[in-house]
Amino acid sequence: MSNPRSVASTTPPVCVLGLGLIGGSLLRAAVRAGRKGWGYNRSDATAAAAREDGFDASTDLRAVLGRAEAESALIVIAVPMPAVDATLDAIAEYAPSCPITDVVSVKAAVLEAVSAHGMSPKYVGGHPMAGTSASGWTVGSVNLFREAVWVVDTRHDVDPHIWRQVAQLALDCGAVVVPAEPVEHDSVVARISHLPHLLAETLAVTGDAGGPLALGLAAGSFRDGTRVAGSSPTLVRAMCEGNRDALLVALDEALALLTATRASLDAEASVADLVDAGHAARGRYDEQTHWEIVGIEPGSDDWAKRLQDAGRRGGRIRRL
Amino acid sequence: MSNPRSVASTTPPVCVLGLGLIGGSLLRAAVRAGRKGWGYNRSDATAAAAREDGFDASTDLRAVLGRAEAESALIVIAVPMPAVDATLDAIAEYAPSCPITDVVSVKAAVLEAVSAHGMSPKYVGGHPMAGTSASGWTVGSVNLFREAVWVVDTRHDVDPHIWRQVAQLALDCGAVVVPAEPVEHDSVVARISHLPHLLAETLAVTGDAGGPLALGLAAGSFRDGTRVAGSSPTLVRAMCEGNRDALLVALDEALALLTATRASLDAEASVADLVDAGHAARGRYDEQTHWEIVGIEPGSDDWAKRLQDAGRRGGRIRRL
Repeated sequence: MSNPRSVASTTPPVCVLGLGLIGGSLLRAAVRAGRKGWGYNRSDATAAAAREDGFDASTDLRAVLGRAEAESALIVIAVPMPAVDATLDAIAEYAPSCPITDVVSVKAAVLEAVSAHGMSPKYVGGHPMAGTSASGWTVGSVNLFREAVWVVDTRHDVDPHIWRQVAQLALDCGAVVVPAEPVEHDSVVARISHLPHLLAETLAVTGDAGGPLALGLAAGSFRDGTRVAGSSPTLVRAMCEGNRDALLVALDEALALLTATRASLDAEASVADLVDAGHAARGRYDEQTHWEIVGIEPGSDDWAKRLQDAGRRGGRIRRL
Repeated sequence: MSNPRSVASTTPPVCVLGLGLIGGSLLRAAVRAGRKGWGYNRSDATAAAAREDGFDASTDLRAVLGRAEAESALIVIAVPMPAVDATLDAIAEYAPSCPITDVVSVKAAVLEAVSAHGMSPKYVGGHPMAGTSASGWTVGSVNLFREAVWVVDTRHDVDPHIWRQVAQLALDCGAVVVPAEPVEHDSVVARISHLPHLLAETLAVTGDAGGPLALGLAAGSFRDGTRVAGSSPTLVRAMCEGNRDALLVALDEALALLTATRASLDAEASVADLVDAGHAARGRYDEQTHWEIVGIEPGSDDWAKRLQDAGRRGGRIRRL
């Protein structure tokens, strides 16, 4: 496996593999920002729909990747996690020199697959925190990433040139960049994205066990608390099961809180500790402020560590 | 303690004790419906605010209750649970013949207090399922109960004349009536109103434990799942702790689901059982339909049991 070729431009052409909601929106947004871009989808119908909307799309993966190799494009893997390995096989064969990013919702597992292909020096992962409840090219939007948070993989040995390309792509799509290390990304996403699904499913089941009388009395707290239980079970399982280790940590913390609360409710008729802590925590969420990360040059001393630290403290990048 | 006097009218005057959000909205709605009504509040400022809005309100509990006794009014206890006992003391002294209802969010504990005063033959509890996140006369609304569900205590030995008065008051306020037995009411409310608060607090704490990075990546699932953690801790504690026994049952069911899910995630990397069950449960919530209870005459054979059964199956009363 060769090292990535030196890339002078931070705005290379973009080659998007997978034109579903996220990949399709990304191609639209990148092209609107003035970037050259083209895409691949395995389905004839999807590629045709993208072409009808005026985009360069094909079902010929070999040709799409050959062009990426010839034009030093940034490849964006926008397929579901189970299809990542086969996609990496194709990239290794047809576009071995290209820098690679992705938009999959877990980061450590993708890095592991990339590393198994010997491609980690060329890889900088990404995760745009944008809607995923519907799917397909047709539901995509050029504005999907506007003001969204886009996590960019900032592990200690990341390539600063490719990092800059990936961050610039996120910014070009209208997002703000939060730098984070992959394992840390997965840990926090377990807390704020995957645990909410398990609690919502639990509440739905426990409420429904009260029968029609319970469901008929249910008002806002139940409705909001179970909203995401309406999501596709396949999607929820893929997210939660794909982030098992981190989700177990978050779930164990939640179980410890609920178990302690059960004990104090039983013994002292009090839920004060949990309620006071929860109210304070929600207050911090409501009152959080974000600040702009400036002055950390990719490639400078300790730059990845300094960006990680800044991301951990709520910093965001709005321009390079 | 005397038995309730015979009441021919289903629309007696209404005497509201406590003019906060619920009591104040109830007085407004009853008067708009053409009912005679007056209220008491211990605070000068609240009584004055109600008078300024054109309502008959006083801080003289003895006079307010004396008038209720003289006019055979239906007394509505609209004070917080901790003030219920003292309110019952005053009713026993100054309005011993009046029928009584309440709007407190738990029903078994109020019935217990009423029974300890020897007043249960005159008491038919109520619980309008309407907003409680703000408080005070000024935030009340004549429309607060429009199309809301109003649970009316339909225990086996309830007085059918007083039951009819209470149900008519709920209907006059624009609500639909769901008949339920007090212990069963508390059981289902634990599932759909109190458990959601404990899960929201738990999610808020677990998310916040991920620090600013976690809170900064949090999107819709966390925001909705923690919304009610923003409620007043005092209010949340009062609700949850006031319904301890029923909440312990619901909490134990939730803990069992989460514990089993933790085990299957760890051992089999699967959350399928919970996610499939939760999705189906939320589907039943979304698709529930309500039907109108008709033809069960209060006072007829087994009427309370038949109404309980109908309420349990999703029935609602829209007129008497």
